[in-house]
Amino acid sequence: MTETISVAFIGYKFMGRAHSNAWRQAAAFFDVPYRPVLKVLCGRDVQAARQVADDFGWEEVCGSWEEAVTRPDIDIVDICSPGNTHRDIAIAAAQAGKHVLCEKPLANTLADAKAMWYAAAEANVISMVNFNYRRTPAVALAKQMIANGQIGEIRHWRGTYLQDWIVDPEFPLVWRLQQGIAGSGALGDIGAHSIDLARYLVGEIAAVSALTRTFVKERPLPTAMTGLSATGGQARGPVTVDDAALWLATFDNGAIGTFEATRMATGRRNYNRFEINGSRGSIAFNFERMNELEYFSLDDPPGQQGWRTILATDPLHPYVSAWWPAGHGLGYEHTFTHAVVDFLKGIAAARSPQPDFADGTQTQAVLEAILRSAQSGVWVSVERVG
Amino acid sequence: MTETISVAFIGYKFMGRAHSNAWRQAAAFFDVPYRPVLKVLCGRDVQAARQVADDFGWEEVCGSWEEAVTRPDIDIVDICSPGNTHRDIAIAAAQAGKHVLCEKPLANTLADAKAMWYAAAEANVISMVNFNYRRTPAVALAKQMIANGQIGEIRHWRGTYLQDWIVDPEFPLVWRLQQGIAGSGALGDIGAHSIDLARYLVGEIAAVSALTRTFVKERPLPTAMTGLSATGGQARGPVTVDDAALWLATFDNGAIGTFEATRMATGRRNYNRFEINGSRGSIAFNFERMNELEYFSLDDPPGQQGWRTILATDPLHPYVSAWWPAGHGLGYEHTFTHAVVDFLKGIAAARSPQPDFADGTQTQAVLEAILRSAQSGVWVSVERVG
Amino acid sequence: MTETISVAFIGYKFMGRAHSNAWRQAAAFFDVPYRPVLKVLCGRDVQAARQVADDFGWEEVCGSWEEAVTRPDIDIVDICSPGNTHRDIAIAAAQAGKHVLCEKPLANTLADAKAMWYAAAEANVISMVNFNYRRTPAVALAKQMIANGQIGEIRHWRGTYLQDWIVDPEFPLVWRLQQGIAGSGALGDIGAHSIDLARYLVGEIAAVSALTRTFVKERPLPTAMTGLSATGGQARGPVTVDDAALWLATFDNGAIGTFEATRMATGRRNYNRFEINGSRGSIAFNFERMNELEYFSLDDPPGQQGWRTILATDPLHPYVSAWWPAGHGLGYEHTFTHAVVDFLKGIAAARSPQPDFADGTQTQAVLEAILRSAQSGVWVSVERVG
Amino acid sequence: MTETISVAFIGYKFMGRAHSNAWRQAAAFFDVPYRPVLKVLCGRDVQAARQVADDFGWEEVCGSWEEAVTRPDIDIVDICSPGNTHRDIAIAAAQAGKHVLCEKPLANTLADAKAMWYAAAEANVISMVNFNYRRTPAVALAKQMIANGQIGEIRHWRGTYLQDWIVDPEFPLVWRLQQGIAGSGALGDIGAHSIDLARYLVGEIAAVSALTRTFVKERPLPTAMTGLSATGGQARGPVTVDDAALWLATFDNGAIGTFEATRMATGRRNYNRFEINGSRGSIAFNFERMNELEYFSLDDPPGQQGWRTILATDPLHPYVSAWWPAGHGLGYEHTFTHAVVDFLKGIAAARSPQPDFADGTQTQAVLEAILRSAQSGVWVSVERVG
Repeated sequence: MTETISVAFIGYKFMGRAHSNAWRQAAAFFDVPYRPVLKVLCGRDVQAARQVADDFGWEEVCGSWEEAVTRPDIDIVDICSPGNTHRDIAIAAAQAGKHVLCEKPLANTLADAKAMWYAAAEANVISMVNFNYRRTPAVALAKQMIANGQIGEIRHWRGTYLQDWIVDPEFPLVWRLQQGIAGSGALGDIGAHSIDLARYLVGEIAAVSALTRTFVKERPLPTAMTGLSATGGQARGPVTVDDAALWLATFDNGAIGTFEATRMATGRRNYNRFEINGSRGSIAFNFERMNELEYFSLDDPPGQQGWRTILATDPLHPYVSAWWPAGHGLGYEHTFTHAVVDFLKGIAAARSPQPDFADGTQTQAVLEAILRSAQSGVWVSVERVG
Repeated sequence: MTETISVAFIGYKFMGRAHSNAWRQAAAFFDVPYRPVLKVLCGRDVQAARQVADDFGWEEVCGSWEEAVTRPDIDIVDICSPGNTHRDIAIAAAQAGKHVLCEKPLANTLADAKAMWYAAAEANVISMVNFNYRRTPAVALAKQMIANGQIGEIRHWRGTYLQDWIVDPEFPLVWRLQQGIAGSGALGDIGAHSIDLARYLVGEIAAVSALTRTFVKERPLPTAMTGLSATGGQARGPVTVDDAALWLATFDNGAIGTFEATRMATGRRNYNRFEINGSRGSIAFNFERMNELEYFSLDDPPGQQGWRTILATDPLHPYVSAWWPAGHGLGYEHTFTHAVVDFLKGIAAARSPQPDFADGTQTQAVLEAILRSAQSGVWVSVERVG
Repeated sequence: MTETISVAFIGYKFMGRAHSNAWRQAAAFFDVPYRPVLKVLCGRDVQAARQVADDFGWEEVCGSWEEAVTRPDIDIVDICSPGNTHRDIAIAAAQAGKHVLCEKPLANTLADAKAMWYAAAEANVISMVNFNYRRTPAVALAKQMIANGQIGEIRHWRGTYLQDWIVDPEFPLVWRLQQGIAGSGALGDIGAHSIDLARYLVGEIAAVSALTRTFVKERPLPTAMTGLSATGGQARGPVTVDDAALWLATFDNGAIGTFEATRMATGRRNYNRFEINGSRGSIAFNFERMNELEYFSLDDPPGQQGWRTILATDPLHPYVSAWWPAGHGLGYEHTFTHAVVDFLKGIAAARSPQPDFADGTQTQAVLEAILRSAQSGVWVSVERVG
Repeated sequence: MTETISVAFIGYKFMGRAHSNAWRQAAAFFDVPYRPVLKVLCGRDVQAARQVADDFGWEEVCGSWEEAVTRPDIDIVDICSPGNTHRDIAIAAAQAGKHVLCEKPLANTLADAKAMWYAAAEANVISMVNFNYRRTPAVALAKQMIANGQIGEIRHWRGTYLQDWIVDPEFPLVWRLQQGIAGSGALGDIGAHSIDLARYLVGEIAAVSALTRTFVKERPLPTAMTGLSATGGQARGPVTVDDAALWLATFDNGAIGTFEATRMATGRRNYNRFEINGSRGSIAFNFERMNELEYFSLDDPPGQQGWRTILATDPLHPYVSAWWPAGHGLGYEHTFTHAVVDFLKGIAAARSPQPDFADGTQTQAVLEAILRSAQSGVWVSVERVG
């Protein structure tokens, strides 16, 4: 009989549903060491939280994370609230001896990230940042192939994470566009994913030269905050985060790279793409076709080389054997289920799965270097936190 | 408080997991009229059934479908056992007043399908055949666009459902390759999906000229059935179904079409593709890229026309608003969840969702015409059962 | 110093320019055994012919093919006039001892094709039918790979040649839509290319079951023929050829295939596509991306197999070394240049290049079987002419 | 009767053949104001030059460009020799009153480019730099669409020109890898094309932050230069140009961009790709599929928006009506023919076609800023030369 493990969850919106689903699906499809019990869902808006709880089977709802994270019947705390709240919750949870899974980016500042990491280390709990794209089967396959040496020595990283949900200047000033809550804009929200993928697949980033841009500088206040302005028009407020961030990077191993994160790339919904060129081959991936991995190999016979589309849905591919036969693709939410599965295995093995809080802190150091470079206009070396 | 509705499920393998998941997910993500209770899972191999039941939360397991389908606490019977068992189970369930959801194809013969349909009609229960590909958002969007007249008068259907899981002649003689259990091979298993999609999107098929082929005529017996032959080699048995089926078709509305269903298309895992050409535009779809719909319109300005890849992941697209933001694609299993959602809505509305058993019987009539044409070498008119 | 060889050319429209260009380019880019002299261009409309002659450097223009093909200073006759004129010109040319290159299809009837073939054989001249798509580098590469056994035993052919230039019912009744001149419609014009490719790549076709369709049965007369009808409207005439032709086929070697040729596939400009599935791999090609060959191989390591896009622009690929560096693709007209190059080499080697008139006659036999099947509704065996 | 115009051509290798072909083809396919006479081909290696001259019909061969560019019977000088020779030839030609077409990049330094521009301006001759990719029909179509406002205000440029012909460290140290002759490496050779396209389609570049890298620092000397080293191995020499160059850019109009030019992108043969995102739509192009333009428009109905592949082979598209029917694509060399056609029209109109030497000098200013930024590690403003 599988042992159970109890989860407290902080958050309830988009990410709330993605995580709730993952906690439910993990044990249904995978052979996990613990069967998760969805114990308590915690949100400021208890009414909204109750709806998610009902939909996904959380046993209880609670309005105070402080209470939830210290309950003795809780083993795991999963944090999906806005970035400015991560630090306090994570530290409290770790100090209470809970294992902590935290949505990305780990924090809004490097200092906060470090504090979270140290707290988890001191408490000796399992920690993990949910950079979920690592756990797309095609990406995990890319990692294996690179580790096998199949593309040789890496020379180029080319990462573009493109979205377009704020192209319209009338799109309102939601929390993700406010620096105080979100920390940064495209950079921290989606650029952080690119950084995580680059570090996972290529190696540590040494230095960056960056540019950020806010194309639409004012937006209508969201309905909840809104009111008529003095002149009778819709009230507006300043956008305090970047719409787009671009940077060049050097890697410790000699590779070089370009990165772009933007929410203004009309026609790109969730175009988290990367291409890696090595001395023996190349690899490319785009989340909009998440079940495919592109691969080129100089080991193929001359005259018959070409970019190969590997449909990463074979039972041989990472995570896939738990699901469906070849050619029956997976979707976005599966990456969260895989994260939960690995987190549970990490707890059983008493070793934090990657990226743990230390690793997430290093990504935060890259974000910080980018912001500093964008402000100063010069190359900035990335602090090595490990 | 949502009313509950109780399900008995027959089957437990690949389809057992897909359906179990759908019954669980429907109420978590959609606003359904009833919350399904996973009451009893029924399978000949009770041990194997118990594993699936544990994984997905079925309350009970049972070895006799006869018993399960007549239990007074059961509202719905969902049938995923091999095709040769559909008739008896469905008729018993209907006669017991249960609503019946049945995997495709409806039956192994037209006569069986008719009997099932008549039983459901007489009992006045809700019935549905699970041709799940209809409920891929991109396909449901195609249906809307065709219904809106966006591609005009349809002239061509081009359907190819290609797989490759039996390319290797050493792949064993599993039940799907045995006529007595499966009815037919690629034709009934995957060709039936193409027929359903063609009938859904284009209209009724009038006549067919067909060819079937079994490329590998003998295969090793599967482990369970196997033994050493007299000569000491691995025992083999005859493949009694088609590896591939090809047919031309005329439609009632003047369109013409080609169809191909094969399990021998090396490199095609689940390539359920169709293209439809009309007088004003065209549409194409391939399940291996299930989140995309291809669309060409003569209404676009001259010189700027082109095939457009619609990423069918917008909240505006059918079924999508229940899931994730744009660009965060769905997977194979979601089509089953959508089927369950529509089935529950059909029960609430007291109207069988399409394709119901009548509709499934018409698809069976096409299958029968194809087999007769393949045997006789002449065009065969499709019986109109409605 | 390279020997020269003199060409008489019959025709001057679309194909006139494609062939004229080929005769000019052959010696500029390839090491050919003879340097072609563009001696005389022959066309009924001498004015129009003179324009083409001026553009491409034909030395003379002439209104009578009878005269041109018998001139003693002519070595080669190249025939690009409508299909109903091929027989007489080719026979006259062969009897005058000229080598004959003829546009496809060889003739409008099998009887005519045979007469042409016999005349060429009797006169012992070099003959060739210009099925130019064979000489796309990617297609010639496919042939090499199949010959090397790289896709194993062939099981499936899937050929679709789709165009859309007559989708509009107001498109006029040009000569290609008139049976007396063109012989057939999509079938002979583009379906013939598919047959040639299938025979080249897969093998001889044994039998066919076919369907033809004319969707738009009347069209406006072209300007030249037009007049006001009695009722004051634009005069119309009947379309006497097929808009589309579909057929199933069996091959001598056990493969089976589907074919479709249509001018009514909205959005497909020149979509000459085929896919071939074999026991070890598969190959696919689409002329709209003529510089690419798709290839799937079961010899690639498990878990890393995928469809590979070979950019067939390497110097290693057939014909390519005469042109540009890798990645600098070729266009439509290059296929004609390659045909001329091979024709010149055939003359030097005293051996007709493939497809010669014998081979073209066999394709004509397939066309004839398709027409008979479409009329009779039964499978028709293909006459073996060789 | 069309007037003739006489051309002297300097160079004979890869570019020699591309230009020779263009001079021949221009009048065959286009209605040009002058019929070019291929008068004299000039190359240091007269033997090699004679071969090209014979192949393409140049009347004479000559070993001294000084002599050729001053001949009174010459109207046009076309320069395709290495970059370090451009300045002297162009200035001499202009001073002799010849119209000058020059391969890109205009020169190896900004000072040289300016001198060339001033000479052409002073002599009042027609000048043009052959950034041929502008004249791909799909790119010229993109320009039209952007000018029409179809993608709105431009926000992002994303240009990657990727090749892989020097991935192998044993590839020899050809002249393109030597700073003294080539000026720079990937930057000037292919990055210059990206800059030209960005300036053509987006607007002037204001400032850049750049990184260059030479991955393989020593290579074998080419056969001509080679000898055994003291230790008996193959003699090697230092690579003195960049293998790759990356830069961020700001544009005058507020757009921002990333650029990458590399010869080390394994699997990318001639991947000259760009994507432009605007407030109403987006456009993308990749030369490896040169007949296609990708277009996304927010003006398409919600729920039916998508990236549209425009097959830029319609007679409506720029340059195409001179060639073949829709769907019959063009190749690499056609872009040169288009350049020659526009150059001839420019002469007739007494107005230099774009990009003229002034425009080419501005591109040179961007190249110079990139090199300075790569050396200094800071953002560098681009000098405005106009």
